[in-house]
Amino acid sequence: MARKNQHYQKLAAGYLFPEIGRRTRLFQEQHPEAEILRLGIGNTTEPLTPSVIEGLHDGVSRLASLETYTGYGDEQGDLPLREKLAAFYAGRGVNLDADEFFVSDGAKPDSANIQSIFSRDCIAAFQDPAYPVYVDTNVIAGRSGEFQKDTGRYEGFVYLPCSRENNFFPNLPEQKVDLIYLCSPNNPTGAVAAREQLASYVEYARRNRSVLIFDASYAEYISDPALPKSIFEIEGAKECAIEINSFSKFAGFTGVRLGWTIVPKDLVIEDSEPGEINHMWFRRQTTFFNGASNIAQRGGLAVLSDAGLQECRELIQYYMNNASIIREGLLSKGLEVYGGSNAPYLWLKTPGNMTSWEFFDKLLEEAWVIGTPGVGFGPAGEGYFRLSAFGHREVVETAVGRIQSRLKI
Amino acid sequence: MARKNQHYQKLAAGYLFPEIGRRTRLFQEQHPEAEILRLGIGNTTEPLTPSVIEGLHDGVSRLASLETYTGYGDEQGDLPLREKLAAFYAGRGVNLDADEFFVSDGAKPDSANIQSIFSRDCIAAFQDPAYPVYVDTNVIAGRSGEFQKDTGRYEGFVYLPCSRENNFFPNLPEQKVDLIYLCSPNNPTGAVAAREQLASYVEYARRNRSVLIFDASYAEYISDPALPKSIFEIEGAKECAIEINSFSKFAGFTGVRLGWTIVPKDLVIEDSEPGEINHMWFRRQTTFFNGASNIAQRGGLAVLSDAGLQECRELIQYYMNNASIIREGLLSKGLEVYGGSNAPYLWLKTPGNMTSWEFFDKLLEEAWVIGTPGVGFGPAGEGYFRLSAFGHREVVETAVGRIQSRLKI
Repeated sequence: MARKNQHYQKLAAGYLFPEIGRRTRLFQEQHPEAEILRLGIGNTTEPLTPSVIEGLHDGVSRLASLETYTGYGDEQGDLPLREKLAAFYAGRGVNLDADEFFVSDGAKPDSANIQSIFSRDCIAAFQDPAYPVYVDTNVIAGRSGEFQKDTGRYEGFVYLPCSRENNFFPNLPEQKVDLIYLCSPNNPTGAVAAREQLASYVEYARRNRSVLIFDASYAEYISDPALPKSIFEIEGAKECAIEINSFSKFAGFTGVRLGWTIVPKDLVIEDSEPGEINHMWFRRQTTFFNGASNIAQRGGLAVLSDAGLQECRELIQYYMNNASIIREGLLSKGLEVYGGSNAPYLWLKTPGNMTSWEFFDKLLEEAWVIGTPGVGFGPAGEGYFRLSAFGHREVVETAVGRIQSRLKI
Repeated sequence: MARKNQHYQKLAAGYLFPEIGRRTRLFQEQHPEAEILRLGIGNTTEPLTPSVIEGLHDGVSRLASLETYTGYGDEQGDLPLREKLAAFYAGRGVNLDADEFFVSDGAKPDSANIQSIFSRDCIAAFQDPAYPVYVDTNVIAGRSGEFQKDTGRYEGFVYLPCSRENNFFPNLPEQKVDLIYLCSPNNPTGAVAAREQLASYVEYARRNRSVLIFDASYAEYISDPALPKSIFEIEGAKECAIEINSFSKFAGFTGVRLGWTIVPKDLVIEDSEPGEINHMWFRRQTTFFNGASNIAQRGGLAVLSDAGLQECRELIQYYMNNASIIREGLLSKGLEVYGGSNAPYLWLKTPGNMTSWEFFDKLLEEAWVIGTPGVGFGPAGEGYFRLSAFGHREVVETAVGRIQSRLKI
């Protein structure tokens, strides 16, 4: 008789977005006149740029003729795309081989699956708050004990709190941990790790033979040249880090689906030879995955062209202008705001020690604006609130105007 | 210190395709004049059809404008596509809800990942020979013991041999098993299960609360109306089966990447309520996956349009005409050939009790033709050889002509 993977039972209910939906519907029913605006989504809203659209159309057209049709592609991703990615990194001083890149259908699947090549008894550590996929996939893999309602934490995991006190970058773990998930620029806090902060984690990981799983999905939102866009800008990181990245927020590919993961051949862990972890990820991907869409890969090539990069920088600037508008608007209300400078997320300290959900209700009722309660990203997110720079300008301006004129603080 | 998932060490080397490559390169070096032809690939070769190309271009164009741009889509796949799939099944008398369909990036990832929602101590059973992904992913998940070189089997797995004696459809397992992988039309044997054969497995699975994981990726190659295209044409299958399917061979989407999996809400196992397995797959997909490309999904809608279906049937007929040419050519040489009637694969008994690899070398040396050794799909494939109907007509005709004129039997 077949039985379930019991680890699924441990998962705390996927409560955040259904609950946002429930409260929103209820409010709308009670206030049919309210034009509710969303200022908290993590989804791109602006169309793809001309060069990228042309690249994607070209990808489709190639499938229409005998001479250019392709079926299954190169197993790690089409070689021209991997070479272009390697050149893109070389342009910022990071030298990697094309066969250290694995093209995928996005950062979410890769950050979910990367844990599967490591032993189940590895101790996993997470920034708190964090993107829920890191925690949930390690629960499902069986690395945790039960969920503790009083602390909001799973037994067996190590939480690395990020708060005002440490500028939202975690102190080093006090104990030995094996897998460490870091995301910079951070979702949800919008904090960006400085070079010396990342260097301290690289030093820790090399000393303890831990693996840093570095999610750089928002790297292109960094405009300050002093801030690293890749973990591999840090000396020694190739021995201890895996980097996951994506075209989703870089080029608006949230629906197109394209990303990449870098597993350096120099990466070694307790029981591996150099090259072995790279090969295990190759084996994992060629067994469980069959490549990103060849159309999306042509789009990725177009993103990395000179014209594409220029256009995507303008697209990012559009969102970052949204971020400035939100940031200025909130600051002018006397609110305490973090992030939004080199990241598309803004992290708001709720006023008057309100809980995240209390502030959610207040913002909805008074300004008809929806954001994301920080506690949904982990217990250390309690008392915070995430807003995002993704959205049409008019929506952002209207929402911020409403917050300024109607929110009672 | 991080450690590896040790189950990867158990995997028998991914030997088949590298070894084919090695022998082919060696022969080419020794015989530079030889124009080697491939008659064994599982990859589509013909361009996409006009309606489908139009659908894909439309998918791209929608991303170019503010009004039609979309980012992340519906979590289970865009609703219009799932509704169209439900209507497609209804057309063959199978009634399923749109929320029993999960759109994915293909049958390979789904058939690889489906095991992960079940307990690790479930006993897994496989047709032998079979698509290697079923076995390998269960090894990696830790359901097997060691690989036994003498038998070519993993300890702890149940192998269901498919041979001439049972017309390449396996007898029921003699013991109780929990997960049973069935593929019909079969890769590699080209055998298609009859209604009563599937009914016997449905009866077994209901009696033992086992789950049938039914891979129907080649269903559209069935032309005989008596043969079931879906496991859900069998009474009671919704209580015990999951079906995995794909646009890859149906419409030439091997590179575009689009498939679907059906998890009926009626499916129950030892420790689940109705609806619970459907919900677990939803949780799995929404945690580890972020949807198929929105461009590919527009292509899928076009495939399922009246014009698209008609065109794809013609495309399939093209490949099936290849299959007839191969089949007739081999039969005229007195070879023993199976499959190729309602499936794109032909399964050849090697002449004179040659091993699969001996016949591979003979075919390469005498006819300059490459096929796939049957033993690469499992120990019961020894003494067999897979040819496929995928390929350009001229290549197929030339290869078959060479086999007829040059192969010494």
